[in-house]
Amino acid sequence: MKVLGILGSPHKNGGTAQLLFSALRAAEKEGAETEWYSLYDGEIKPCIGCIQNEGPECRFPCIFEDYGKFLLQKIYEADGLIFATPIYWFAPSGVMKNLIDRMTCLENMVSFGEPSYLEGKVFGAIVVGADTGALMTGGYLIATLNSMGAIIPPWAIAYSYKSKASLWDDKDLMNAINVGLLVARTVALLKGKKVSLFYVDDKALLEEIRKEVLTELKLSEEPLRHVRKVGYLRY
Amino acid sequence: MKVLGILGSPHKNGGTAQLLFSALRAAEKEGAETEWYSLYDGEIKPCIGCIQNEGPECRFPCIFEDYGKFLLQKIYEADGLIFATPIYWFAPSGVMKNLIDRMTCLENMVSFGEPSYLEGKVFGAIVVGADTGALMTGGYLIATLNSMGAIIPPWAIAYSYKSKASLWDDKDLMNAINVGLLVARTVALLKGKKVSLFYVDDKALLEEIRKEVLTELKLSEEPLRHVRKVGYLRY
Amino acid sequence: MKVLGILGSPHKNGGTAQLLFSALRAAEKEGAETEWYSLYDGEIKPCIGCIQNEGPECRFPCIFEDYGKFLLQKIYEADGLIFATPIYWFAPSGVMKNLIDRMTCLENMVSFGEPSYLEGKVFGAIVVGADTGALMTGGYLIATLNSMGAIIPPWAIAYSYKSKASLWDDKDLMNAINVGLLVARTVALLKGKKVSLFYVDDKALLEEIRKEVLTELKLSEEPLRHVRKVGYLRY
Amino acid sequence: MKVLGILGSPHKNGGTAQLLFSALRAAEKEGAETEWYSLYDGEIKPCIGCIQNEGPECRFPCIFEDYGKFLLQKIYEADGLIFATPIYWFAPSGVMKNLIDRMTCLENMVSFGEPSYLEGKVFGAIVVGADTGALMTGGYLIATLNSMGAIIPPWAIAYSYKSKASLWDDKDLMNAINVGLLVARTVALLKGKKVSLFYVDDKALLEEIRKEVLTELKLSEEPLRHVRKVGYLRY
Repeated sequence: MKVLGILGSPHKNGGTAQLLFSALRAAEKEGAETEWYSLYDGEIKPCIGCIQNEGPECRFPCIFEDYGKFLLQKIYEADGLIFATPIYWFAPSGVMKNLIDRMTCLENMVSFGEPSYLEGKVFGAIVVGADTGALMTGGYLIATLNSMGAIIPPWAIAYSYKSKASLWDDKDLMNAINVGLLVARTVALLKGKKVSLFYVDDKALLEEIRKEVLTELKLSEEPLRHVRKVGYLRY
Repeated sequence: MKVLGILGSPHKNGGTAQLLFSALRAAEKEGAETEWYSLYDGEIKPCIGCIQNEGPECRFPCIFEDYGKFLLQKIYEADGLIFATPIYWFAPSGVMKNLIDRMTCLENMVSFGEPSYLEGKVFGAIVVGADTGALMTGGYLIATLNSMGAIIPPWAIAYSYKSKASLWDDKDLMNAINVGLLVARTVALLKGKKVSLFYVDDKALLEEIRKEVLTELKLSEEPLRHVRKVGYLRY
Repeated sequence: MKVLGILGSPHKNGGTAQLLFSALRAAEKEGAETEWYSLYDGEIKPCIGCIQNEGPECRFPCIFEDYGKFLLQKIYEADGLIFATPIYWFAPSGVMKNLIDRMTCLENMVSFGEPSYLEGKVFGAIVVGADTGALMTGGYLIATLNSMGAIIPPWAIAYSYKSKASLWDDKDLMNAINVGLLVARTVALLKGKKVSLFYVDDKALLEEIRKEVLTELKLSEEPLRHVRKVGYLRY
Repeated sequence: MKVLGILGSPHKNGGTAQLLFSALRAAEKEGAETEWYSLYDGEIKPCIGCIQNEGPECRFPCIFEDYGKFLLQKIYEADGLIFATPIYWFAPSGVMKNLIDRMTCLENMVSFGEPSYLEGKVFGAIVVGADTGALMTGGYLIATLNSMGAIIPPWAIAYSYKSKASLWDDKDLMNAINVGLLVARTVALLKGKKVSLFYVDDKALLEEIRKEVLTELKLSEEPLRHVRKVGYLRY
């Protein structure tokens, strides 16, 4: 049971990372192995639309030899996917959009008589900003992955408008933890396990995970240090 | 295993109805009992936003004694939901939006220490138009129902731009049948059955269901009678 | 120079009304005559999709004799339109969606060799909620009205997540005032006047308009009375 | 009067380019100087979110020395902007999203006591695909640019689902030409000229522009050569 986290933010300990790591810790508590990658740690060449060629030619693996190809392989191998993005103009960051465009090669296997390579995977989204656009971004992500064949567990969109202070908002953090729990449990369900897919409200789990993520991200326990600047932000 | 179809179109044998009924026939073949209701067969008073009152007061059942209340009860009792809507200005029809607003009372049970009454239900969408807006409408529906607690099976948005001729488009029809199959199978999975959640491509099933729906809707087998006017439509 | 405000909220002195009235006061200061109507003050029958009939038959005035017809006439006569809606599930309220569906008869005049009756009108949106969905709702409104032929001035979407306390948020209020100013100025521009379409940041104007709207809505000057309950709201 | 075209497609003579060039030719007939750039002709580094830094630091010109910076300068100098994108998963291509993210430095001048550098500019969108997502993509673009301060003329979203054959669809082509005409005329209006902002339906103009674009893109006059493969495409 493999759950893959994708970080679409340039900030490795900002709010997006905080909630992604919280979700991954939660998935581990359900027995998942987890990995995560930042989209800013290598080059993801933009899709050149081979699907329009006479061939058809757009198929997995993608023709580009880059970090994007590595990530597509990781996506291919995962059972559960959690994409975490900052809200950039009411939408995922450009690097995440590049990855999504490149994922066409996984879905387009249907043109070669195979199932979509996203079929049977379970998808959740984490979205962090400082103003508006959370549902627009998260709704976009789940509609897109569902259109590639992924299953969407309940409460699959967690978001926070607390920016760098997201980890200190109990409701937002509990929602992110649920994305991790419910993605992992839905994977387990598909593998024949009995699970509950109801929202989990568990303060002890929340505090435990918050502590782990604080340590992992080397953040102070003091939220104020992180919220200080939120006043500047308009979106 | 109960699957409920909601028809958001004023036309009872138009494309929206054609694909909804196809999905329901498919769900029955998976062992589901089905029912359907047209949103145009009674009054659905607009939500008056009790959630904003001091109380809190917004809870199931809704205070209005109308057709909307009847439908909310039907939704409450169902395991699977398929909402079918025409595309009116890139979004569900106004009557369907009224129903969604009224569904707040089901979700808002979380304010009373209960789970959302949509939790654990499985949701799919069927969207029919003549121009554009299909994914915008279907994506809106799955994001909203997911935010109320519903599970979204793979390929949960089926759409057609063929308007009254939707039933004669093999791809669009197969997609609608899959919404029915996959909603029913996901319900079965949650009840402990072993199922596959992969897309089904089955021409014999398609022809069988098309024939059933033609008979049920008293439509001619001749598609041309139905496509004749599509040229008029701009959206 | 006529600017029409449409209130899509059931609450006549809630945040949506507060910001709509602020925008209308601002439009008046630019020389506009203003009117406003609540969508909850009469019946707006749902659109029955005559555009699909053989005719074509969908044309202004709409066949229904109801409050909706009255509002369509008011829209037809206006130079500028400001639609104000609460965020109900990331979208305009159901009654506003019903009105939009009914507006098809104004736009569909293009099927009769006439321009769209929305052409040349200027449109702005005001959106109020307590959680997320503001840009999704406002973006939907401007894309739809633009697709009917309306011009969209800069900064045409004003929103607040302060719910009943929206009038006390200086930034949100200034944005709503700008919707009123810029809708009116764009109307004036189209009528041959010289105007600036730049964002106006004017604290004196803000305080003046807030005072007027407080009086008009018979609200206390004390914001706390109105924010009290915001804690309850989740969307 | 400068109108800038941005091509977000990797295909320099595909449907997106065909309709973009048609719009630019139309703008020239209104007296505009035009230029265009392909987003695939250089590197556009992804935005690293300086807006979150303590500074504030995100301001024009952007810190990256790349092709993106060159394009931001071109955007800064233009009066009218036309962004043309293929539909990649119901949204602009990843490269176009990267450009939009980088445009934050133009808008964020408001944090330094200046107007947004997009204020007063006029924006239109061209969107081409083979299935669905046109309004979702175009609506996203106009909502985003409007939120940066741009004015949106009527009928500002032109789209085609004809993919490589877009230039041969009269309605889609006429719509794209109108984007060019109406962007240019709105710029003229803002500069004090008297113009009409009504939709133009002019077959002679359409044929003239189609001929010019055919020549410019070295395309055969025979549409079939270009539509041949559209059958393959599913999105």
